[in-house]
Amino acid sequence: MPYRAPVTEIRFLLDRVCGYGALPATGRFADATTESRDAILEGAARLAEAVLAPLNRAGDLHPARLGPRGVTSSPGFAEGYRAIAEGGWIGLTADPRHGGMGLPLTLATAVNEMMAGANLSLHLSPLLTQGQIETLDRFAPQGWLRDVALPHLVAGTWSGTMNLTEAQAGSDVGAVATTAEPAGDGTFRITGRKIFITWGECDFVANICHLVLARLPGAPAGTRGISLFLVPKFLPDADGNPGAANALRALRLEDKLGLHGSPTAEMAFEDATGWLIGQENAGMAAMFTMMNNARLGVAAQGVGVAEAAFQQALAHARERRQNGVALVDHGDVRRMLATMRADLLAARAILLDCAVALDMAAATGDAAWAARAGVLIPIAKAFGTDAGHALADTGIQIHGGIGYVEATGAAQFARDLRVTRIYEGTNGIQAMDLVGRKLSDGGEAVQRLIDGICETAERARALHGALAEPVWQAAESLREATEILLDRPVAARGGAAVPYLAAFARVLGGQAHLAAALADPGRADLAAFYIRRLLPEAQAALAAVRDDPGTLAAPGLLPAAR
Amino acid sequence: MPYRAPVTEIRFLLDRVCGYGALPATGRFADATTESRDAILEGAARLAEAVLAPLNRAGDLHPARLGPRGVTSSPGFAEGYRAIAEGGWIGLTADPRHGGMGLPLTLATAVNEMMAGANLSLHLSPLLTQGQIETLDRFAPQGWLRDVALPHLVAGTWSGTMNLTEAQAGSDVGAVATTAEPAGDGTFRITGRKIFITWGECDFVANICHLVLARLPGAPAGTRGISLFLVPKFLPDADGNPGAANALRALRLEDKLGLHGSPTAEMAFEDATGWLIGQENAGMAAMFTMMNNARLGVAAQGVGVAEAAFQQALAHARERRQNGVALVDHGDVRRMLATMRADLLAARAILLDCAVALDMAAATGDAAWAARAGVLIPIAKAFGTDAGHALADTGIQIHGGIGYVEATGAAQFARDLRVTRIYEGTNGIQAMDLVGRKLSDGGEAVQRLIDGICETAERARALHGALAEPVWQAAESLREATEILLDRPVAARGGAAVPYLAAFARVLGGQAHLAAALADPGRADLAAFYIRRLLPEAQAALAAVRDDPGTLAAPGLLPAAR
Repeated sequence: MPYRAPVTEIRFLLDRVCGYGALPATGRFADATTESRDAILEGAARLAEAVLAPLNRAGDLHPARLGPRGVTSSPGFAEGYRAIAEGGWIGLTADPRHGGMGLPLTLATAVNEMMAGANLSLHLSPLLTQGQIETLDRFAPQGWLRDVALPHLVAGTWSGTMNLTEAQAGSDVGAVATTAEPAGDGTFRITGRKIFITWGECDFVANICHLVLARLPGAPAGTRGISLFLVPKFLPDADGNPGAANALRALRLEDKLGLHGSPTAEMAFEDATGWLIGQENAGMAAMFTMMNNARLGVAAQGVGVAEAAFQQALAHARERRQNGVALVDHGDVRRMLATMRADLLAARAILLDCAVALDMAAATGDAAWAARAGVLIPIAKAFGTDAGHALADTGIQIHGGIGYVEATGAAQFARDLRVTRIYEGTNGIQAMDLVGRKLSDGGEAVQRLIDGICETAERARALHGALAEPVWQAAESLREATEILLDRPVAARGGAAVPYLAAFARVLGGQAHLAAALADPGRADLAAFYIRRLLPEAQAALAAVRDDPGTLAAPGLLPAAR
Repeated sequence: MPYRAPVTEIRFLLDRVCGYGALPATGRFADATTESRDAILEGAARLAEAVLAPLNRAGDLHPARLGPRGVTSSPGFAEGYRAIAEGGWIGLTADPRHGGMGLPLTLATAVNEMMAGANLSLHLSPLLTQGQIETLDRFAPQGWLRDVALPHLVAGTWSGTMNLTEAQAGSDVGAVATTAEPAGDGTFRITGRKIFITWGECDFVANICHLVLARLPGAPAGTRGISLFLVPKFLPDADGNPGAANALRALRLEDKLGLHGSPTAEMAFEDATGWLIGQENAGMAAMFTMMNNARLGVAAQGVGVAEAAFQQALAHARERRQNGVALVDHGDVRRMLATMRADLLAARAILLDCAVALDMAAATGDAAWAARAGVLIPIAKAFGTDAGHALADTGIQIHGGIGYVEATGAAQFARDLRVTRIYEGTNGIQAMDLVGRKLSDGGEAVQRLIDGICETAERARALHGALAEPVWQAAESLREATEILLDRPVAARGGAAVPYLAAFARVLGGQAHLAAALADPGRADLAAFYIRRLLPEAQAALAAVRDDPGTLAAPGLLPAAR
C-alpha cells in the first residue's frame, strides 16, 4: 500500500503534547507560525508520498553500483534527490544568509521523518548534508567554504559526508590513523582510509564535501589529537567552483543487509587537499556538532520507517481474512498492531519533544532547555530506532509467510532500519552517554524531566486516574533507579545503561500517552493499552538497573576463553 | 569463526537438567545408553562442523535456482546432503524395519540442532523428510508406500515435502481449495496450487514425495473436509521405483529474506496421481503428526542457529579491542553476551525437556508425559525461535557496523532464522494452541509443570536461596495467571496468548538455570544473571495477561478504517 505521510498525527503531537506553540513565541522562530508550519508539512508530505516513496523498492532491488566512473545510483534516485533539493528541504534550518529558511529543527525533524519513512536510502544523503551545513556554519573559516560551499550544500547542488570510521578503529574514534600534513599554503594533505562512508560517492551532485577526522603531526594520542578537515571531491577553482579532481576515491561499496539504495563506500585519501574546520586537535567537538544533529535525524528515521511499516501491516490485517474473520480482528494480531501504534506514538513524541527542547535552547539560550535536550537526544535516538526496528519486525510477523518474501516490502523496512540502531553511535553508546555524561550534573536534568512526568500524571488524575497512577509510580521508580546509578562510579554503570534508557523511554512514553489522552479523549483507549500492557516493561528493565553490577562481573558468566 | 557443535553443553543439559537417564531405562529405548548416545552426538558434531557449516555462506550467496530442468541447488549442497543421508542421520528415529535406527526423538532433536546450527537451509530438507517418515509410518496403507517409499525416505535417497498453504488461505488450512478426485483404481487425481513448499524441487534425490492437503468431492467445508495425499514427483513403476513423471511441477521460487539455499517453491498439481494417507476427511489429524514433529525440529533450528550466532559474537567480542579494552570487557557488550548465553541455555533446556517428554510418552504410554509434551511443544517452538532470532539480532549489534555487512555472516543468521517464527504455525498460533487446546484439560498439565518448577525451587533453596525465591514466586504468579485465563472463554484469550507463552518460557528458563546451578556450581553465575536480569520480564508479560481483555477490544485502539 502507498505510504501516507502522517501529517495529522505530527501536528497533533506538536500542538497538544510537545508544546510547539512556544517556538513562534520566541524571536528567533517568529516566522514558524502554525500556518506556515502546516504549509511546510503538507509540502513535505506531497514530496514523500508522490516522489520518494515510489522509488523505495527500486533502491532495494537495484543497489547503487560503483564502476570506473563512480557510482550509478538506483533508478529514479537522481530525480528524487533533485526534488528534495529544489524544494528547499535540505536547507530548512540553515541560515538564510546561505540560502536556508532559518526554520526550527523541530520542523526539519518532522520533514525528515516523512522523507525517511518514504525512502530511507535516499534520505541519508540530505540528512548528512544537513549535519555538515551546521558544522560548517559554526566552524568553517571565511573564504570559499562559507561563500561557495555552504550555499551549494544548502541548495543541494553539492552534498556532504562524514568520514569517521577506520577499519581498525570501529566506534573507537580516538584510534583514528588518517594523517594531515600542513601543505604550507593553509591547506593540508590528508592521507588514510575510511570505511562506512554513506553516500561517499554520488552521481547527482556537482561536488561532494567530505568531513574527515585526521591527525596532525605530533598530535596527542586519543581523541584529543584529532582534527577535522573538509576534503572536497573536486578542488575549488579561483571562484570556488569545482575544478581539478582531488586525490581521493571510493574503493568499493559494502554489500549490506539493507539500505541497498545508499552507497556505503570505503574511501581512500592519498595526499588529498583538505581545509581545517575549527581548531587544531579540536575535531571531536566539531564532529559532535554534526553527530548531535544527525542523531536526531536518525531517531526520525526510526520513527518514519516504523510508520510506513505500521501502515502496511494495518492495511494487510484489514484486507486479509482468516477462518472467515479479518486478521485485524484476531486477538493476537490486534495486540501486535496496538503495540505498533502505541510505540509509534511514544517514539514520535519523544523525538519531537527533543527537537522542541533543542530549538528552545537555541532560541532562548536557557541552559535548562539544553540540558533537557541533552538527556532526550540519546533516548530519542535509541528508543526511536530500537522501537522502530521492533515495529518493522512485528510488521513482518503480521504478514505471516508472505512477510518473509521480499516482494512484500515488509522485510525491507526491517532490513533498512536495522543499521539505525548502530550508526551515529550504537544504541549501547547512546545509553552510555545517558548514564555517563548526561548524569554528570548530578542527575539534575533527569530529575527535572521526571518532575515533568509526575506533573503530567497529576494533571491526568481527575480524568484518567487509573492510568495516571501507574505512570506516576513508574516515574518514581525511575527516580530511585537514577539515584542508585548516581551512587555508582561511571565505569560501573555500563551493564545498566541499556535497561535504564529503555525504562526511561517507556516512562516518557507513558507521559506522552497521558498527555495525548488529556488532549483528545479518543486517544484514551490507546493510552490505556500502552500503560497497562507496555509500561510494565519499565519495571522489568529497572530490576536490571537496580541489580548489583557484580552480577555482570561474575567470572562464570561467559565460557572460559580457549 | 568456524561453528563448533555444542556437544558438551547438550550432554550436560540432557543428563543433569532434562532427565535423559529415564530413556534407556525404558524397554523401547534400552539401546540409547549414554555411551551410544555420546558416540552419535560426536558423529553428528563432526558432520555439522566439517561438512555442513562450511557450506552455509555459499547457500546464502548462491541461492537455489529454478530452470527448465528443475532446481540447481547451492554449491556443495548435494554433497552435504549425501553426507547427511549416508550417515543415517535422517532415519535416526525411524523404525528399524524401514532402515531406521529406532532411537529417541531426543537424540534426533540434539542432532537436528547441530545440523541446523551449521546450515539451516540444507537442514530443512532432512527435517521435512523426518516428519513425512513418521506420518507414513502411522498412516500409509500397505503397498509401495511402505515397502519402497519409506525405506527410500529413511535412507535419504528420496525426500519428503509438506504442501499445506495456498495463496488465498495462509494459515487458514480449512480454506484449502485443492481437489482430489477418485481415479477408480484406488488412486486420486490431485489438482491445485500450493505455495511456500520448502525444497519442493531438489536436484539430489531420486524422487520427491509431496504430502498434499486436498478436498474430496462432497467433502464437508472447513478442516473436517480435508484429506491427505502423497503425490510423488515420479510415479512408481511395477516395483515402486521412480517411473514416469507425475503431473506436477514447481512454477517458481520465492525471493526470500533468508534461507536462500533452501528453494521455496510454488507447486502446481494438474490431475497428478496421489495416494490417500489415513482416512478420508481426516487429513488434518495426519498432517498434525507431521507438524508436531516438525515444530520440535523448528525449535531445534532456533536454538542451533542461535548457538552459531553466539559463538561468532563471543569470538568477535574477545578479539576486537575498543579504547584499549577488549569488547567483551565493556559492560554493555558483556550484558548482551550474557543475555545470549543465558537465553540459549533456557531455550535448549525447554527444547530437550520437551523431547524427553515426547519420548517418555511414546515409551511408557503414560498420558501425563504426553500432556507435559503437549504443553511444552508450543513453548519450545515459539520461545526457541523468538529467543533464537533475538539472539542472532543481538549478535549483529555486538559486531557494530560490520554486523550490517553481509560478508560478516552475522546478518545471515538473523535473516535465516526470521522465518522460523512464522513457519510450522506462527508463534502467535503456537501461543493460541497453548492457551486454547493445551488448557482444555482445565489446566491440569500446566499446573503439574508449575508444580515441577516449584519443586526445583524448593530443592535449590538451601544452596541458592536468593535465586530460588524469585523463581518460586514467578511460578506462583504464572499459576495465578493460568487461573485467570481459565476463567475466560477461549475466544477471549487471544490477546493474552503471546505474553502468557513468553512468561511461561521465562519461568521454565528460571527452573532450568536453577537445575543447572544445582548440578554444576560453575553455572551459578549465569543462573544469577538470568534470574536477576531476565526473569523479571515474566512479571511484565503477566501484567499483560492479567489485563482485562476489554483493553484490547476498545474501539479507539486502532485508527478508524477509511
